[in-house]
Amino acid sequence: MSVERDHLVELRREFHRHPEPAWREFWTTARIVSELDRIGVDERHVGRDALSNDRLAVPDPEELEPWMERAREAGADPEILGSLSGGWTGAVAVIERGEGPTVGLRVDIDGLPQRESSDDDHAPAREGFRSETGAMHACGHDAHATIGLGVLESVAESDFSGTFKVFFQPAEEVIGGGKPMAESRHLDDVEYLFALHVGLDHPTGEIAAGIDDFLAITQFYTTFEGHPGHAGARPEEGRNAVQAMATAVSNLYSIERHSEGESRVNAGRVGGGTATNIVPQEAFVHGEVRGETTEIRDYTFRRAEQVFEGAAVSHDCETDVTIEGEAPSAESDAELVDIVRSAAKSHPDVDRASRRGSIGGSEDATFLMRRVQENGGLATYACIGTDHPGGHHTATFDVDEDSLKPGVDVLTEAVLETAETEP
Amino acid sequence: MSVERDHLVELRREFHRHPEPAWREFWTTARIVSELDRIGVDERHVGRDALSNDRLAVPDPEELEPWMERAREAGADPEILGSLSGGWTGAVAVIERGEGPTVGLRVDIDGLPQRESSDDDHAPAREGFRSETGAMHACGHDAHATIGLGVLESVAESDFSGTFKVFFQPAEEVIGGGKPMAESRHLDDVEYLFALHVGLDHPTGEIAAGIDDFLAITQFYTTFEGHPGHAGARPEEGRNAVQAMATAVSNLYSIERHSEGESRVNAGRVGGGTATNIVPQEAFVHGEVRGETTEIRDYTFRRAEQVFEGAAVSHDCETDVTIEGEAPSAESDAELVDIVRSAAKSHPDVDRASRRGSIGGSEDATFLMRRVQENGGLATYACIGTDHPGGHHTATFDVDEDSLKPGVDVLTEAVLETAETEP
Amino acid sequence: MSVERDHLVELRREFHRHPEPAWREFWTTARIVSELDRIGVDERHVGRDALSNDRLAVPDPEELEPWMERAREAGADPEILGSLSGGWTGAVAVIERGEGPTVGLRVDIDGLPQRESSDDDHAPAREGFRSETGAMHACGHDAHATIGLGVLESVAESDFSGTFKVFFQPAEEVIGGGKPMAESRHLDDVEYLFALHVGLDHPTGEIAAGIDDFLAITQFYTTFEGHPGHAGARPEEGRNAVQAMATAVSNLYSIERHSEGESRVNAGRVGGGTATNIVPQEAFVHGEVRGETTEIRDYTFRRAEQVFEGAAVSHDCETDVTIEGEAPSAESDAELVDIVRSAAKSHPDVDRASRRGSIGGSEDATFLMRRVQENGGLATYACIGTDHPGGHHTATFDVDEDSLKPGVDVLTEAVLETAETEP
Amino acid sequence: MSVERDHLVELRREFHRHPEPAWREFWTTARIVSELDRIGVDERHVGRDALSNDRLAVPDPEELEPWMERAREAGADPEILGSLSGGWTGAVAVIERGEGPTVGLRVDIDGLPQRESSDDDHAPAREGFRSETGAMHACGHDAHATIGLGVLESVAESDFSGTFKVFFQPAEEVIGGGKPMAESRHLDDVEYLFALHVGLDHPTGEIAAGIDDFLAITQFYTTFEGHPGHAGARPEEGRNAVQAMATAVSNLYSIERHSEGESRVNAGRVGGGTATNIVPQEAFVHGEVRGETTEIRDYTFRRAEQVFEGAAVSHDCETDVTIEGEAPSAESDAELVDIVRSAAKSHPDVDRASRRGSIGGSEDATFLMRRVQENGGLATYACIGTDHPGGHHTATFDVDEDSLKPGVDVLTEAVLETAETEP
Repeated sequence: MSVERDHLVELRREFHRHPEPAWREFWTTARIVSELDRIGVDERHVGRDALSNDRLAVPDPEELEPWMERAREAGADPEILGSLSGGWTGAVAVIERGEGPTVGLRVDIDGLPQRESSDDDHAPAREGFRSETGAMHACGHDAHATIGLGVLESVAESDFSGTFKVFFQPAEEVIGGGKPMAESRHLDDVEYLFALHVGLDHPTGEIAAGIDDFLAITQFYTTFEGHPGHAGARPEEGRNAVQAMATAVSNLYSIERHSEGESRVNAGRVGGGTATNIVPQEAFVHGEVRGETTEIRDYTFRRAEQVFEGAAVSHDCETDVTIEGEAPSAESDAELVDIVRSAAKSHPDVDRASRRGSIGGSEDATFLMRRVQENGGLATYACIGTDHPGGHHTATFDVDEDSLKPGVDVLTEAVLETAETEP
Repeated sequence: MSVERDHLVELRREFHRHPEPAWREFWTTARIVSELDRIGVDERHVGRDALSNDRLAVPDPEELEPWMERAREAGADPEILGSLSGGWTGAVAVIERGEGPTVGLRVDIDGLPQRESSDDDHAPAREGFRSETGAMHACGHDAHATIGLGVLESVAESDFSGTFKVFFQPAEEVIGGGKPMAESRHLDDVEYLFALHVGLDHPTGEIAAGIDDFLAITQFYTTFEGHPGHAGARPEEGRNAVQAMATAVSNLYSIERHSEGESRVNAGRVGGGTATNIVPQEAFVHGEVRGETTEIRDYTFRRAEQVFEGAAVSHDCETDVTIEGEAPSAESDAELVDIVRSAAKSHPDVDRASRRGSIGGSEDATFLMRRVQENGGLATYACIGTDHPGGHHTATFDVDEDSLKPGVDVLTEAVLETAETEP
Repeated sequence: MSVERDHLVELRREFHRHPEPAWREFWTTARIVSELDRIGVDERHVGRDALSNDRLAVPDPEELEPWMERAREAGADPEILGSLSGGWTGAVAVIERGEGPTVGLRVDIDGLPQRESSDDDHAPAREGFRSETGAMHACGHDAHATIGLGVLESVAESDFSGTFKVFFQPAEEVIGGGKPMAESRHLDDVEYLFALHVGLDHPTGEIAAGIDDFLAITQFYTTFEGHPGHAGARPEEGRNAVQAMATAVSNLYSIERHSEGESRVNAGRVGGGTATNIVPQEAFVHGEVRGETTEIRDYTFRRAEQVFEGAAVSHDCETDVTIEGEAPSAESDAELVDIVRSAAKSHPDVDRASRRGSIGGSEDATFLMRRVQENGGLATYACIGTDHPGGHHTATFDVDEDSLKPGVDVLTEAVLETAETEP
Repeated sequence: MSVERDHLVELRREFHRHPEPAWREFWTTARIVSELDRIGVDERHVGRDALSNDRLAVPDPEELEPWMERAREAGADPEILGSLSGGWTGAVAVIERGEGPTVGLRVDIDGLPQRESSDDDHAPAREGFRSETGAMHACGHDAHATIGLGVLESVAESDFSGTFKVFFQPAEEVIGGGKPMAESRHLDDVEYLFALHVGLDHPTGEIAAGIDDFLAITQFYTTFEGHPGHAGARPEEGRNAVQAMATAVSNLYSIERHSEGESRVNAGRVGGGTATNIVPQEAFVHGEVRGETTEIRDYTFRRAEQVFEGAAVSHDCETDVTIEGEAPSAESDAELVDIVRSAAKSHPDVDRASRRGSIGGSEDATFLMRRVQENGGLATYACIGTDHPGGHHTATFDVDEDSLKPGVDVLTEAVLETAETEP
């Protein structure tokens, strides 16, 4: 295969220095586009052209602006940036090579609002490519973007026959970008879809060809609005939003378990009130529910809505629930899992190629997977093992750069294989 | 005064042997009526004729029937019993003596569903007039009925000029009889109303001429109805009435305090469910709210209704609230308090006559007091002190029979005095 | 096979007429023993001889006595009854036939505290074998006892070589009898153990050869003890046991889900308090926790104990938790499942023989299964399909008597097969 | 009286332009001291010399520093500022005029962390003396400091005989300064103590000579510490601090009412957790309890501590409670109330002089009042009516400057009167 390890490492380190949180991937998208131009693609769709209007969890303009400014200062192409204005980040690249299947690869590109370790034990710090933005690539999406570009270039230079698309998806960490990318028209003709993640406790040299156990998820932001009152002089004038919130939290966790599979609830961040002597007027719960199936998630969320409503009624408050992000459950298709596994087993740097791996979380790649499957296509979500010293989402997370090239190779091989197996 | 101590003691012991709970005072009413006939009154109104239709907390017919039967067997007049059928107990007696004010006296006559002590230390047990019904006169209403009859006879034999009515009110213990007796037409022309209680920690020889701090009260019976489900196999099919009840109880006690005065809440009796492995379908809260004023009580009850509704919504259940009994707050009028106090001070057996006394509870005599006051009349609620070895509502409660005659005398004197003070 | 369908039907109807709840199976045990004597067994162990001392959920003597009396009146053998005194019910039957494996069969024999339908649609009512005791065989344990006796007789009359034991276990419905029977010495040498249930939504003609998904369970009875107080006059003197209970219920259901498998909680029956105007002194929660594994159950129960303790501390009450019944999780062994399935497939009246079936509940047969497995033996829990018009534990439950003989045949064949496969 | 209205107005406007929150009254104290020097006092005690070590609710040094810096830049005397370092604000002024009683006057001097209105309707904005600090004198303590200085100057220039002390107390808004000022030695010989507040809905021209209904208060900051866990992958590893907090809030409000008087609870500000997908590790409740008497407050706080402990136990967390501020209840003494009322009635600008007024809140002047009363002295808390367009603690609060001079006059007269009434 033609893509060099060194190029991949260099690219990944660039992305690593410029992590940008969800919907703020301005520099990142611009850098991807410049790479697409270098590689030479038949089509590229950027920003609004890559997404439907159904974006979730988009921040307010004033939160976006400093990141746009920063991307500009860091040297991103102003024309590309212009097309990303308003948080319309992400891109779709297409190469067309005649007859054959339409194959897709989805990678996510956003960073996390987390400070990166400056410790000498942490390779990016020691070797000078630590984050320059205050955010951090603490989940390996720098590697994902790199692998996406690497596979694109490899397929472009191969004798692949068919159409190949790479989906550079923004805002995975807030499960906000999967839905609009799935609903863009670019996915509609995809017959085979690959998605990937690095790490997840699989070491370098191991590839898990398919992952199934994604939990469907809904993230919500619920507010309670009451009325203030002086806690000493006029408690009865208050309608207590903090009491409503506390009642909601207690009842949220007590939603009945579902006999058909796992469910989860979490009131991950809550708050309310302003001063000890004022009956609190406002409170919120920022949380999530999950389910082993989309149906169980829906059941749990429906019950959560009753819980919020009931808590508000109990304390004479108003409540409002906003869905911030969501993703369905999904399963990998056996045929495609087998193709990835075969490709992995034949690679000299892969020691272990398993059929199934575990992630135990949620992912909005599931929106794309289900869309392809609903259209009669096949999808799989593969894990490219990589040694990572710190856990995902921690300040010392890092990837083993030796895993980049095998990742590119195996996925390229799998893409080529789909063209062979086309009936 | 003409009524003998011995007659009062004998009468009180008769009542004591035949305690009957709320709306089951069949023997008691019949015995009162026979005494009215002996004394000779100008009118007597029994059962339906003594009450409006707005009775509260009336038991089911099957709970009434055995008590009716028992009263018959214990020798009550069958004709009188006939007019009490369906739990229409209680009576109003009227004597008319020409020109003068219309004066009322209200006494309550029901017993409590409580077993009486059979200990030798307990005078009724030792001296052979312990309860024969399984219920108990544990709050002194046997003495109240006796004093009511005693005052009636004394006034009848005096030179009183005016109209005098005694209200033998049923069902005070469930605060169910005050409202229909207040709303009967018999109270409408009453200008001066006396109500009374014995004991309340005031010793024999002390009379408190007026009591003010009655808490307004509403007693409720709230049900929650959900849906059963197997707790192991299908928890999500259940809609959990016990969870709804628990949420309601927690929030009930947390209703905001009111800055204008005391409030109270109590979930005095709760229950729900049938088996450990069934998601509970039904639950209930039998409780009460009180307020220093009727408005505070109303505020608290309105909030309680929201709490029940909210708890039901939270757990996808239905709820239903029944008001079982209620009574407003009330204050004694200073002029009438002074009349009772003067009468008390001049009685040789009264050591201490105070203006105010404390009861710290609720009473449905307040319905009658407020009705009279709304019509421009005056009312007071007096306490006739009596040594009582056990506390009210306990198995060893008893009254000091030496307090009966002074009670009759003082109230008779106060009744006569109102005729004198008529403008 | 030698046992006649008619005999099985007759026997089942006899058991059906005499249902006795847990630890009160006096008539039932005596009838089983009389049948053992008719069949002729090598050993029979009754009552105390069949159980260890570790019985769970045994009722008070006054609850046992009327059932013993009733069994006597219904004609049970007084000598046998004597050995069951104190609720030591159940029996173990042993037949020895020389060299070969020791094989066990466990059946449970108790009824439920439930009134049986008297509707003409309900066969036992229509055909004259409806319950005569007030309790009901609403879960098919009458069929279980019958099949146990049928297999015993069939094996006894066969050319089986080895030792065969039938465990007639009491008190399954309160998960109280499994533990002491597992801990009796009779199970220690068993190499192959079969357990069975009829119905569970499997129709007549279907046999599920192994069931795995038993949830481990702990049933508890938790009390809260506070202090009474007059709700109007002295609320602060009360320490409110109902508030503690309500807090506990809310928090019980909100115990965190476990990522390694299903868990369950249920406050199936709760209550507290005595009167609307008394701060409640006492309250209770009668409930259960379950887990997909014994470890998850233990985790959940440990958290439940914290919840009870915390609720008591919050409301200044005392709490006490009694474990009433418990059972671990268990899995059927594939080898034994296969033996039952083979036997089922070759039976002319069996249409469908599946490897796995679902029960979705808990069972204390798991105590016996695990004991055998811990000793190196194999166990399976089979389901004998039977059409049942009403659901388990309902007033119209009934079994299809056509399923009795195939059940006996298949299990007998499986028992004989184990002797063949002995290494 | 010698102090001019114009001087008072000017002084008040200066204070108004420099509001400083609790323990940050650096400019304010320095300005007071410079005024003391102008007036000429016999003793002045500043900072550490004016307080015991028992300061409550003192902010961290980094919060103090910018305010110290600001005071320096605004021209405060550096030497005085030096003695206030570390938040040792406030002062006591003493004038000695021979034989006679020791009389005290307590005024508070801190502002509130609130933005002031810049609307033209708001006099300080229109007339150019709006806050320059970001904080605001939204409760009239600028007028209090002014009146304190005015009375001091008036008494100094009168023929008063005795000792007069003015207590310029810091940190009333966080009820943090009353205790250490009460416990300084300066109060020990005070025989008559006056405290005052302006406004409280009493209009200009009205003076309420004594206020009684202060609620005793305790403000607390309670933390819950659990353990994080991934809400999807490992919920059981989390120990949920937000659940503990929610349980605490529900139970806090449900603490039993007390029959001997009013109580209050408020969880005025709460929060916890960091992200939707993390089981929250930390949470807090910033709140308060109050009581009509100190005993009721103590009862309620003791129960609150049980509630926190129980909530922590229920959710396997740790809890820690810090008392941030507190104040007892207090009553004004009738003799001193009468002196203020006489002084008020004889003033030409006072239309209405009432004996009692209502505040319906809490105040840490009560620490000083009780200290004096415990030493056998007398105390009263007077309200100087002033028209105020906005409510206390709102952005449009302002005082009517016409009320300053009458306030100074009446209190000076009352101080002089105490010397007359000395036995």
